[in-house]
Amino acid sequence: MWRLYQFPLCPFSRKLRLLMSEKSIRFSLERENPWEMRDEFFLMNPTGRTPVIQHAEKDIVLIDSRAICEYFEETVGKNPMINGTAARRAEIRRLVALFDENFYGDVTAPLLMERMTKRIVLREAPDSRNLRAAMRLADEHLDYIDYLIDNRPWLAGSTMSLADLAAAAQLSVADYLGGINWSGHEQARGWYSTFKSRPSFQPLLAERMEGVQPPKHYSDINA
Amino acid sequence: MWRLYQFPLCPFSRKLRLLMSEKSIRFSLERENPWEMRDEFFLMNPTGRTPVIQHAEKDIVLIDSRAICEYFEETVGKNPMINGTAARRAEIRRLVALFDENFYGDVTAPLLMERMTKRIVLREAPDSRNLRAAMRLADEHLDYIDYLIDNRPWLAGSTMSLADLAAAAQLSVADYLGGINWSGHEQARGWYSTFKSRPSFQPLLAERMEGVQPPKHYSDINA
Ligand SMILES: N[C@@H](CCC(=O)N[C@@H](CS)C(=O)NCC(=O)O)C(=O)O
Ligand SMILES: N[C@@H](CCC(=O)N[C@@H](CS)C(=O)NCC(=O)O)C(=O)O
Repeated sequence: MWRLYQFPLCPFSRKLRLLMSEKSIRFSLERENPWEMRDEFFLMNPTGRTPVIQHAEKDIVLIDSRAICEYFEETVGKNPMINGTAARRAEIRRLVALFDENFYGDVTAPLLMERMTKRIVLREAPDSRNLRAAMRLADEHLDYIDYLIDNRPWLAGSTMSLADLAAAAQLSVADYLGGINWSGHEQARGWYSTFKSRPSFQPLLAERMEGVQPPKHYSDINA
Repeated sequence: MWRLYQFPLCPFSRKLRLLMSEKSIRFSLERENPWEMRDEFFLMNPTGRTPVIQHAEKDIVLIDSRAICEYFEETVGKNPMINGTAARRAEIRRLVALFDENFYGDVTAPLLMERMTKRIVLREAPDSRNLRAAMRLADEHLDYIDYLIDNRPWLAGSTMSLADLAAAAQLSVADYLGGINWSGHEQARGWYSTFKSRPSFQPLLAERMEGVQPPKHYSDINA
C-alpha cells in the first residue's frame, strides 16, 4: 500500500489526498513535519519537502505533488483528472500551477508562517500586516475563481479536474487558518461548498493540527 | 507560428526554447519584461509571468513553462523528453520541479534580483551577503548534479530528458550572472559542457541582456 509522508496543513499533500481518494487509491498517512528536517526524510527526498509517497513492496518513492499526480493519472484509469484535448490538459496544468505557486505564495505560505509556524515552531506572535496582506491577496484570487465559475461549471471547464483539486486544497488550508472571507464571492463559495460535501473531502475537514484551531465555519458543509 | 513572450535571462523561457529547438518546433521571440507589468500582458496571463506562448492562427495561448512543455511533449513526437515508464516519467518530473523550484528559489532568483533587477530596474547596488548565500547554495546543487552524473549519463537516466533541459536552463542563467564556480565539480562541468555544444544551446549563449555582462567563460563552449 502507498504511504504518504505529510502533515495536516500541507496543501500539496491535501491535493494528492483528494486525487487518490477520487481515484479510489488506498494509502496510509505518515506524519512528517518538514521543519524538523529529519535526516531519514532528507535521505528519501533531498529537498526535504512534503509530500513524498512510498510503496515499499514495489520499491517506489515518488516526490513532488505534481509529478505524483501525473504518475497516478498515467497508472490509474478511474476518474481521469488531467483529461481531454492537449489544449484542455494545458489549461488544467496552467491552473494547477497558478494555485500551487501563486495562490500558495501569495496566501497559503504567509498564513502558514503567521498562524502555524510562528505558533508551534518559532513561538512568536503573528504579524498582523502580513496577515492583512495575505487576506487581501486571497480576495483577488477569489475574484478570479468567481470569474472562472461564472463561465464554466468547474475551474478548467465542463468536468471536474486536477485544477479543482489544487484550488480546493489551497483554499481549505487558507480557510482553516482564518484567511478567507467568503462574503461577496458567491460563485467561489458555491463551487467550494459543492466540493466540501464530496466524500474525498471529509477526512480533510475532520482533521486538526495540534495547537491551531480552525474557525467555526471551516468544517460546516452548509457554510 | 508560435510566438514566445520572454526576456533573455528568464530561465523558464530558456527551458522552453531548448525543448522547442530539440523538437524542431519553429517559434519567434517577443520581448516581455514582466517587471513592467503591461496591461496587455496581464490580459493574456493573469499572473503576469513569463513565459507565455501564443499561436495566433490557431487561437491558442499557453501559460506556465511546465504546462507548455507537457503540451509539446503530447503534440510533437520528435525527440521525446518526458518518456519511458511511469516511474521514469515521475523521476524526470521530480527533477524538473527541483530545478524549477529549488534551484530557482535558492540560486537563480536571488542572482537575478541582485545582478539584474537591482541594476536595471531598481538602480541599487547588489547586496554581497545575498550573492554569497546564492553562490553557496549553487555549490550544494552542483554537488547533487555531480552525484547524479556519477551514476547516470544524463540527469534522469540513460537518455537526455526535460530534467537536463530544466537544469541547463537554470544553470545557464546563474552562470551568466557570475554565480557558478565550476571548480571541484568535474561531473557537472562535463555534463554541462556537452550540453553547451548542442545546436539548441547556441542561441542562448549568443544572447545578451542589456546592461548585464556575463563572465568570459560563459559562452566559451570549451570552458
Ligand atoms: N512543488 C512541491 C512543493 C512542496 C512544498 O513546498 N512543501 C512544503 C510543505 S507545504 C515544504 O515541505 N516546505 C519545507 C521547505 O520548503 O523546506 C510539491 O508540489 O510537492
Ligand atoms: N512556474 C512558472 C514560473 C514563471 C516565472 O516565475 N517567471 C518569472 C520570470 S523568470 C516572472 O515572470 N516573474 C514575475 C513575477 O513573478 O511577477 C513557469 O514555469 O512558467
